[in-house]
Amino acid sequence: MSKEITSMQEDYSQWYNDLVIKAGLADYSAVRGCMVIKPYGYAIWENMQKQLDSMFKETGHQNAYFPLFVPKSLFEAEETNAEGFAKECAIVTHYRLKADPDHKGKLIVDPEAKLEEELVVRPTSEAIIWNTYKGWIQSYRDLPLLINQWANVVRWEMRTRLFLRTTEFLWQEGHTAHATEKEAIDETVQMLNVYADFAETYMALPVIKGVKSANERFAGAVDTYCIEALMQDGKALQAGTSHFLGQNFAKAFDVKFTDKENKLDFVWATSWGVSTRLIGALVMAHSDDQGLVLPPKLAPIQVVIVPIFKGEEQKQLIDEKVIALMQQLKAAGISVKYDDNDNNRPGWKFAEYEMKGIPVRIAIGARDLANNVVEVARRDTKEKMSFSMDGLSERIITLLDEIQLAIFNKAKNFRDDRVTPADTWDEFLKLLDEKPGFISAHWDGTGETEDKIKELAKATIRCIPLNNELENGKCIFTGNASKQRVLFARAY
Amino acid sequence: MSKEITSMQEDYSQWYNDLVIKAGLADYSAVRGCMVIKPYGYAIWENMQKQLDSMFKETGHQNAYFPLFVPKSLFEAEETNAEGFAKECAIVTHYRLKADPDHKGKLIVDPEAKLEEELVVRPTSEAIIWNTYKGWIQSYRDLPLLINQWANVVRWEMRTRLFLRTTEFLWQEGHTAHATEKEAIDETVQMLNVYADFAETYMALPVIKGVKSANERFAGAVDTYCIEALMQDGKALQAGTSHFLGQNFAKAFDVKFTDKENKLDFVWATSWGVSTRLIGALVMAHSDDQGLVLPPKLAPIQVVIVPIFKGEEQKQLIDEKVIALMQQLKAAGISVKYDDNDNNRPGWKFAEYEMKGIPVRIAIGARDLANNVVEVARRDTKEKMSFSMDGLSERIITLLDEIQLAIFNKAKNFRDDRVTPADTWDEFLKLLDEKPGFISAHWDGTGETEDKIKELAKATIRCIPLNNELENGKCIFTGNASKQRVLFARAY
Repeated sequence: MSKEITSMQEDYSQWYNDLVIKAGLADYSAVRGCMVIKPYGYAIWENMQKQLDSMFKETGHQNAYFPLFVPKSLFEAEETNAEGFAKECAIVTHYRLKADPDHKGKLIVDPEAKLEEELVVRPTSEAIIWNTYKGWIQSYRDLPLLINQWANVVRWEMRTRLFLRTTEFLWQEGHTAHATEKEAIDETVQMLNVYADFAETYMALPVIKGVKSANERFAGAVDTYCIEALMQDGKALQAGTSHFLGQNFAKAFDVKFTDKENKLDFVWATSWGVSTRLIGALVMAHSDDQGLVLPPKLAPIQVVIVPIFKGEEQKQLIDEKVIALMQQLKAAGISVKYDDNDNNRPGWKFAEYEMKGIPVRIAIGARDLANNVVEVARRDTKEKMSFSMDGLSERIITLLDEIQLAIFNKAKNFRDDRVTPADTWDEFLKLLDEKPGFISAHWDGTGETEDKIKELAKATIRCIPLNNELENGKCIFTGNASKQRVLFARAY
Repeated sequence: MSKEITSMQEDYSQWYNDLVIKAGLADYSAVRGCMVIKPYGYAIWENMQKQLDSMFKETGHQNAYFPLFVPKSLFEAEETNAEGFAKECAIVTHYRLKADPDHKGKLIVDPEAKLEEELVVRPTSEAIIWNTYKGWIQSYRDLPLLINQWANVVRWEMRTRLFLRTTEFLWQEGHTAHATEKEAIDETVQMLNVYADFAETYMALPVIKGVKSANERFAGAVDTYCIEALMQDGKALQAGTSHFLGQNFAKAFDVKFTDKENKLDFVWATSWGVSTRLIGALVMAHSDDQGLVLPPKLAPIQVVIVPIFKGEEQKQLIDEKVIALMQQLKAAGISVKYDDNDNNRPGWKFAEYEMKGIPVRIAIGARDLANNVVEVARRDTKEKMSFSMDGLSERIITLLDEIQLAIFNKAKNFRDDRVTPADTWDEFLKLLDEKPGFISAHWDGTGETEDKIKELAKATIRCIPLNNELENGKCIFTGNASKQRVLFARAY
């Protein structure tokens, strides 16, 4: 079969790349580090967008759009933020090409079209947005300002991987402005909860909510909240972040408001984002050596029906049943495909839809018709079942819910089994190699220790879980006093 | 009133700018020629996207995403296209900033991070997409390839205007690949019809379908089809284009396929797009000196309800009625807002919702309650009516349809009245000044004549209407033989 992929056991990283390519999610492009998101991958992104967008709107946010370019002088205004992103920015310096006098048909950059001020292609939009908010906010009546943007951003990454880390990626970035510190923190936590709910309910991806250490904080944030997920190779993946920005950007861009008592104060800010990286997480968390395993709630096609027949007469009888079933499923909002393409044999189709991770496959043959049944295969467990045609659509709808839950539970059991305490440095190192996952260990709270652990063990602090239990202990590395365990892992 | 705008009569151009700003559609940004699309403007764009996207999907297209950047060597591959866009391209030349040694806290472009090959920020995506299609198309079985992309593009325009012409804008670009010339032309025409249907049915904007002259053709196209609309100042606006690209891009990127007879041939192509410019068209076509007039099918809020009351008791009685009405309207898919904000008086609200172009305003006062009626105001005609509360939601739903049609008919009558034949050069010039609109005139078919007319009259050929009647005549400018009239206008 042409669609075979490297097995997960053999080479996890290669398995992932093979899968992304063979399932038709994405392709490499001619631009260094940038990918092409193919229709099937983009359809997953559209489903993610649709759900997230409705969750953002339900929590009172509106969408808007801000420029792709950030003038250098604005970019550098919030110094911590600028410093954090300066090393990975695409810079526009010219605005025109002209004919190359030395090579007919070729173009060169026109040196006369040099910009007076360079433009940074946005790696994130705090600078351009807070510069705009300055003009929109005068009084507490203008607050809160709850805005989200769906956009592309560019970060010049040296090592890229399809979906997980690309030079250009698609994301949403929420940017909110508030009258009080408390309200901004509440918003930060609310959006973290929205992300966690989305990850668990829609992506079937269990996540741990926590706060980043200072080293891992977003450049320019006071606190970065995150959701952390575990992939099947035991490596962690940051699936979303929500930042409490304090008054840092308001101060950098001089955004003040008069409060109810007519006092002038700087505005409080948050920002939060998830990106096409989530598609990588979805693939890595659930899939297997036969291909993708997609949770029904995000699968572009939830049910595929394959007829098995000899001759037109059998086909027509099958068609009749299928058309009725499809109508019922579609009426229930189920996305269903009938593949009666004559060019490919059923076996080929079965393998193809396994590769594509379609949650439920229904096969109908002449004998099934006679027995008033269909063969139903679950993608997640590969279980095959015989279902009666009576009440079939209801049964399929229930099955999709069962699959959604089963995929979540499988990932949750795996993840729960991989949160392991370590009390000594040796144990810590041993676990990282032998039972990779989240390692719960004491840390002395300093960035220096964190850096050294990263250097020696290639593991980072993924987060300090929210509502962490306090527990006196000694730092796994320095032996200094610690008041709580934090979660370490090797990570994407 | 703070929200007054320049009148259309006094200064059409200023009226437009005032309106866009005061209605909260968009704002200027710190980036030359780029705008911020504010939530209310973006909500209109979302409604446009939603409708267009479903029309694209109904005609078999899928969405995908291609890189923002085009390496210069790919950009220049299709020479006509490259030449057409070279003069207005933003160019990325570096990928890093570094601390400015001379100014603490400032950044400079790191000269050591110069790209080996410059990247063009896409002004359109044919080059990057056809370079990708090369890897996707081998046989006729891979065709047709029907892909659309929602994206931002950048064209370094010298004179910009909010929505109508901005350096960065949002659009969709369809890029399809076909096995035969006929199929590609059929696709080009199909998508033109989709655009015309969208413009007329949803934007309430009558359009003329036609083909561009060679001078006005998309760089790299064999034929450019377009829809042309008329604004209230008599200037034309190109609202969408659909290009038959022949085999130009397939040849430039060497994209061949084996047909059913196993022969190798270049692939046939189309591309087609509409942009946020449509929001400008929507504003200019229907609005008035009180503000926006939005067709109900694209209005973010279709109905606004304003209570008029004294004291809590009256308010509660009104609330009861309103809640029931809102439930009925929402159940019918109507977007409705109840503005019972205590800070603003009804008169202020009326003016505000007129500015925002909300199609139907309902006012309910205590006396209305007693009489079992409400006051209903149409935004388009400013007519006020008294409707019984019995069957009110059905009446409102019907009214929205009536308004949609009335806005279209008004624009169509205006447009039809402004398609005027001219048979002499003097008449032509006189019409342009005294009854601006589409002028139907003979033209000798040469680019030179077109250029001279443009220079002398500031008018361009907007299109040669589809199914144009043939008629022998003499060119308005040169007197040379002509076989048909074409439509001239001054245009945005």
